[in-house]
Amino acid sequence: MRTRYPHDAYCPKPEHHFTFGLWTVGNPGRDPFGDAVRPTISAIQIVNKLAELGAYGVCLHDNDLVPMDATAAQTERILREFTGALRETGLKVPMATTNLFYDPVFKEGAFTSNDARVRAFALQKTMKSIDLAVELGAETFVLWGGREGVETNAAKKPQDAIKRFREAVNFLCEYARDNHYAVKFALEAKPNEPRGDLFLPTTGHMLAFIYTLDHPEMVGLNPEVAHEQMSGLDFSHAVGQALEAGKLFHIDLNGQKPGRYDQDLRFASEDQKGAFFLVKLLEDAKWSGMRHFDSHPYRTEDEQGAWDFAFYSMRSYLILKEKVAQFYADAEIQDLLEEQMRLAETSVGKLGCTFQYSNRLATAIKTHPFALERLRTQGFNYERLDQCTTEILMGIR
Amino acid sequence: MRTRYPHDAYCPKPEHHFTFGLWTVGNPGRDPFGDAVRPTISAIQIVNKLAELGAYGVCLHDNDLVPMDATAAQTERILREFTGALRETGLKVPMATTNLFYDPVFKEGAFTSNDARVRAFALQKTMKSIDLAVELGAETFVLWGGREGVETNAAKKPQDAIKRFREAVNFLCEYARDNHYAVKFALEAKPNEPRGDLFLPTTGHMLAFIYTLDHPEMVGLNPEVAHEQMSGLDFSHAVGQALEAGKLFHIDLNGQKPGRYDQDLRFASEDQKGAFFLVKLLEDAKWSGMRHFDSHPYRTEDEQGAWDFAFYSMRSYLILKEKVAQFYADAEIQDLLEEQMRLAETSVGKLGCTFQYSNRLATAIKTHPFALERLRTQGFNYERLDQCTTEILMGIR
Amino acid sequence: MRTRYPHDAYCPKPEHHFTFGLWTVGNPGRDPFGDAVRPTISAIQIVNKLAELGAYGVCLHDNDLVPMDATAAQTERILREFTGALRETGLKVPMATTNLFYDPVFKEGAFTSNDARVRAFALQKTMKSIDLAVELGAETFVLWGGREGVETNAAKKPQDAIKRFREAVNFLCEYARDNHYAVKFALEAKPNEPRGDLFLPTTGHMLAFIYTLDHPEMVGLNPEVAHEQMSGLDFSHAVGQALEAGKLFHIDLNGQKPGRYDQDLRFASEDQKGAFFLVKLLEDAKWSGMRHFDSHPYRTEDEQGAWDFAFYSMRSYLILKEKVAQFYADAEIQDLLEEQMRLAETSVGKLGCTFQYSNRLATAIKTHPFALERLRTQGFNYERLDQCTTEILMGIR
Amino acid sequence: MRTRYPHDAYCPKPEHHFTFGLWTVGNPGRDPFGDAVRPTISAIQIVNKLAELGAYGVCLHDNDLVPMDATAAQTERILREFTGALRETGLKVPMATTNLFYDPVFKEGAFTSNDARVRAFALQKTMKSIDLAVELGAETFVLWGGREGVETNAAKKPQDAIKRFREAVNFLCEYARDNHYAVKFALEAKPNEPRGDLFLPTTGHMLAFIYTLDHPEMVGLNPEVAHEQMSGLDFSHAVGQALEAGKLFHIDLNGQKPGRYDQDLRFASEDQKGAFFLVKLLEDAKWSGMRHFDSHPYRTEDEQGAWDFAFYSMRSYLILKEKVAQFYADAEIQDLLEEQMRLAETSVGKLGCTFQYSNRLATAIKTHPFALERLRTQGFNYERLDQCTTEILMGIR
Repeated sequence: MRTRYPHDAYCPKPEHHFTFGLWTVGNPGRDPFGDAVRPTISAIQIVNKLAELGAYGVCLHDNDLVPMDATAAQTERILREFTGALRETGLKVPMATTNLFYDPVFKEGAFTSNDARVRAFALQKTMKSIDLAVELGAETFVLWGGREGVETNAAKKPQDAIKRFREAVNFLCEYARDNHYAVKFALEAKPNEPRGDLFLPTTGHMLAFIYTLDHPEMVGLNPEVAHEQMSGLDFSHAVGQALEAGKLFHIDLNGQKPGRYDQDLRFASEDQKGAFFLVKLLEDAKWSGMRHFDSHPYRTEDEQGAWDFAFYSMRSYLILKEKVAQFYADAEIQDLLEEQMRLAETSVGKLGCTFQYSNRLATAIKTHPFALERLRTQGFNYERLDQCTTEILMGIR
Repeated sequence: MRTRYPHDAYCPKPEHHFTFGLWTVGNPGRDPFGDAVRPTISAIQIVNKLAELGAYGVCLHDNDLVPMDATAAQTERILREFTGALRETGLKVPMATTNLFYDPVFKEGAFTSNDARVRAFALQKTMKSIDLAVELGAETFVLWGGREGVETNAAKKPQDAIKRFREAVNFLCEYARDNHYAVKFALEAKPNEPRGDLFLPTTGHMLAFIYTLDHPEMVGLNPEVAHEQMSGLDFSHAVGQALEAGKLFHIDLNGQKPGRYDQDLRFASEDQKGAFFLVKLLEDAKWSGMRHFDSHPYRTEDEQGAWDFAFYSMRSYLILKEKVAQFYADAEIQDLLEEQMRLAETSVGKLGCTFQYSNRLATAIKTHPFALERLRTQGFNYERLDQCTTEILMGIR
Repeated sequence: MRTRYPHDAYCPKPEHHFTFGLWTVGNPGRDPFGDAVRPTISAIQIVNKLAELGAYGVCLHDNDLVPMDATAAQTERILREFTGALRETGLKVPMATTNLFYDPVFKEGAFTSNDARVRAFALQKTMKSIDLAVELGAETFVLWGGREGVETNAAKKPQDAIKRFREAVNFLCEYARDNHYAVKFALEAKPNEPRGDLFLPTTGHMLAFIYTLDHPEMVGLNPEVAHEQMSGLDFSHAVGQALEAGKLFHIDLNGQKPGRYDQDLRFASEDQKGAFFLVKLLEDAKWSGMRHFDSHPYRTEDEQGAWDFAFYSMRSYLILKEKVAQFYADAEIQDLLEEQMRLAETSVGKLGCTFQYSNRLATAIKTHPFALERLRTQGFNYERLDQCTTEILMGIR
Repeated sequence: MRTRYPHDAYCPKPEHHFTFGLWTVGNPGRDPFGDAVRPTISAIQIVNKLAELGAYGVCLHDNDLVPMDATAAQTERILREFTGALRETGLKVPMATTNLFYDPVFKEGAFTSNDARVRAFALQKTMKSIDLAVELGAETFVLWGGREGVETNAAKKPQDAIKRFREAVNFLCEYARDNHYAVKFALEAKPNEPRGDLFLPTTGHMLAFIYTLDHPEMVGLNPEVAHEQMSGLDFSHAVGQALEAGKLFHIDLNGQKPGRYDQDLRFASEDQKGAFFLVKLLEDAKWSGMRHFDSHPYRTEDEQGAWDFAFYSMRSYLILKEKVAQFYADAEIQDLLEEQMRLAETSVGKLGCTFQYSNRLATAIKTHPFALERLRTQGFNYERLDQCTTEILMGIR
């Protein structure tokens, strides 16, 4: 199959740490207004194809692999075959998660349901999923609360929802500790869909929540491009905040147009500039996590289109990674950035350029005579810097 | 003037703790495409009118009261007259803030500017503003970073912006402590406008940031209806999270349609249901803070329209507050809520209804046989509950 | 069942002309992240229940009633039973439409597909649907192009899409004429979902398209609240334009929060003020069309919830209709409106108050001395008018 | 100054027909939260600089050039100097417009104001502006209704607004005819800002309106990238509809992130892929109109930044134009497009591939046996086509 694709500098290899969910390439194309358009691809087939395309690993919800009503014997057989395929291909399972949204039992929420039975069942299902994740060698366990929300606020107080969600995450942390599991948790936010409004709707709200947990050190974030952009927010800013807080545990790469339904488009197929700044952020930080794609092929595609989609997702990341190197190698850009650096690092009179409080410094700043007129009229050359960056992106420089 | 308005149960009084910014009723109606339409109203006049209308207090940016280039003598006179008016009317100044966005000096940011001189000047201006705030008796000092953002990400890393903003807030906390000021800080988030994208764009991102400060106990939130709704987020959820975290220090009430420019419309003039759930949240929590309006009259209005706007803002809050009482007094609603309460508080077999981790409980949950089919088919009566609530809102019940 | 609901002035009756799609109350609650939560309700049952609840009629897609693969005999039996139920209950079928989105054959579009075979099949399916519609007595045939769009613009020129869509609508108009069908066509716009971007995305774009048809007099609009609000547009303005153009042939009533996925919420459960202005517009215009609900019950509901949803949709319309009467009966509101009327209808000097071109009038206007300062400073009392309206809505006046 | 910029294939020249509004490069950077940051640049200076940079022309609002309160003598002098500069530089004025939004007189609307005096004054001001436009040689006169909207629907019926706007446009068409002016009118839509909601909010609504005018042949559209994207709509689809209808009279190029305030960013600085498809559409159609930029420099810039902004706007258009040529020269892309063409143009059995109604064809289509299963399972290769296009955009192919 690889002959279909160019053999060039943007060829994905396992060392690039690209991963895909089983549910992504395997997505059959069902949507709210239409039926599946592609046949199911077996997990084994996905593992083999992803390995062939150069991926590092595969991720999964419990029920992507093991149906909810599988018997013990069926489960055992499925796992044996799946781990066999992993061994043969060398593919890893760096992340796993649990499906708390598809079954009608979760229609009113899972960990935040008003029904205590549903909350307990969600714990049961997640504990089992964690067991599975650990068995498959996953180091990260993602929690996405697909049904943790409301259509009407009349039925649930947001504080109660947060308390219940906290109880669940605390419970699961203790469960992992009690079982000496090395797994860490990565929480994923989304503003809405499939519920009217979801609780803890952005990476920011979710990060704030983490600080209130019993074991915040075990819990970080799994931001998703599309989820943050649905609210029209700058994704790289959210990822930057997560990185700065040491809480970027995982990431979901895809594409999205703001202010609409969750599109899960091929990474970098929309907002190339935003994708560039995201890759720049991850590469600048030498972030060691997986480059995970949570997206799906257009519904116009047959199975071949699904593999194209996978290959191109990885390829686009590598293209953008090279563009980051070009950005830093560009003389004009470097001049412009150094100009900014000088502004940032030149001492303000005797005040310095960073401001740690002391009574003495406070007094000095309070009485410092600033040359405001000069500050008001200086230009920052940002149109030029942005154009240079855009031209790097468009391959013109 | 009060004869213009109904004398009924929704009459604002100081005990209701309504406050307005000088910049709200005093807004002259300038916008990006047009000039001022109303003459400036003096601070003294605003104080007198607000007192007459039943407000509790008035809030201000430093430059709403004292022009940036005022001499010491001018400042002294302005303050004498202003505090005189406060004394006469009994109006308080519960909150003050500093304007770090109007002057061109801040065009590239204030605390997050690349220019160290601008950052230092922003500290100078804010320290002086805090002095003023304390002198006027304000207990809350709001920080809104109107220019803390970017048009292009090429010029600034989001992590650097966060670090600089943290440095500034830490500095100001120490300044307040050093001066034995009782003031607390309330941070206000906004997603965009006037900058392309603002850092820490939602109440969630801002709350997460607070946990990373040197003195998180001194710093809370000032969420604004319009700012959260610009991103299409449920405002009551954000306020609920702030309340649950003990971080709701102040609030900005107004109205907004999602996904557009910052409208700052009259409170409850848009999304009456959202406004109802917000008032319900604040009243349920017996929240003791100010009901502060950060909005402005339509640009079609003359000065009388500005006073109408102010009076109706308060009146609408009181109307909604009464509706909250009606909600709780409604028998059908109470039946429906109790049904949910029972679901929430009935023990799941012997598992209980809240789930604090123990090895024993984990095992019990893991092996508990759930009657999934019953859970899948039960109905929650939320259409009915929501309709009852909507009819309370429409005055039909 | 009617004992469940209040017996008051807001009781729906056939004379109110409320209609529901089979797909609305019958919606099983499938969504992109979850399975059906309610069992299928038969068309007969829906007809019976809607009649019991006071509806006037029921609408349908061809496949809501007759499965795509039904034999002639099955079709005949289904129709006999269905028309039997209609006769018994007196329910009408004022509108029907065709499903051009569910079957995978339409994944790349129906009338605008690149594949000529798909376009031809879409015509076949629609002609048969029109036959069915006419047989059932429908006067309006809705065309919603659920798949007429793209994920990437690389594959199709928007002009070609428009030309193909025009060819199809022209064809169907001729088909109706050729068969002496009295049916009129109502086109429904939507900005996106399930496709990335849909062609002719708003009521405005669709209305413009109609003027380019061979038989524009046979074709009008079916605007939907949610579809227009997904783009953040004022729905009543779109409906006003359709009315003014004589092109409001049908309407889809529901609820939606702007800038997100297609929610199809219960009418007036969101944006009560917007719903009020919509009802006011329809009632002011004495619009004779059906009040059709295109929405579905929350996924938290069982079948009873679906009937609640239906009853409350109609009830809310009647509540708002009464509020329109209250608006016009309110003395303060009338004073304010008359003030505006006077502005609108007082002659400007000798120029008159409406301006039909003549050389003489143009010269007179060009040289007229306007008292600009007075115009600049006048206030319009819109805060007051809007508050009065909001209080009508909240049942306070 | 040209030494600052690369001398390469993307060098703007007059033959490229690039134009800028005086208000764009001359924008002083005032915004709702801050003051001007750049000094005013005189019209003469703008003309000279734009000529130097390679522009073809300059556009203007009446008051960009002639202050509202200028005396006849002042006006005469301003015009003499301005036309002198045009003559010297060879710059044209292909488009002019009138400012109906800045002065407080228009706060409640201009042509749609409730106040008949304001409507008459708006006609006066526009007639004079048209005289000026014709004097300067403009062939296109743009009408943007910056204040034609509402904050509350209580005060104005949308139908009345449309009727008044029609009356005004009809009047102005007659005025142009009566004076034998060759000018055509181009209407510009915007969804909101500075008013809460603007009438005729999209290119689609505006195009529909045009069909209802007395002289539709004199009136076309001036779509703006940012305005359509504020509503999250695909701009190229709107422009495609305008082109197909023969109504693309003018265009406003700039950049915007969806769902927020009107940003007027540098063309192609956001959504490069959208910008590519727009340029492709214009170039494919060999559209002969002006490539007009309606945008402004970042507020961080000094005057030099404004010229950078202007130069880069034109440069980016030329870069994208070359990419369109690359798109058509790419063998893989051509194969993929031809595959689609074959689908589109192969006869469906004996039915043909375009469907003009005849009774015979209708019958043939109705009875044609379609091989649905094959249509359901075919793939369209759109992930591949889109990736190829994205790589053209990123300069990788």
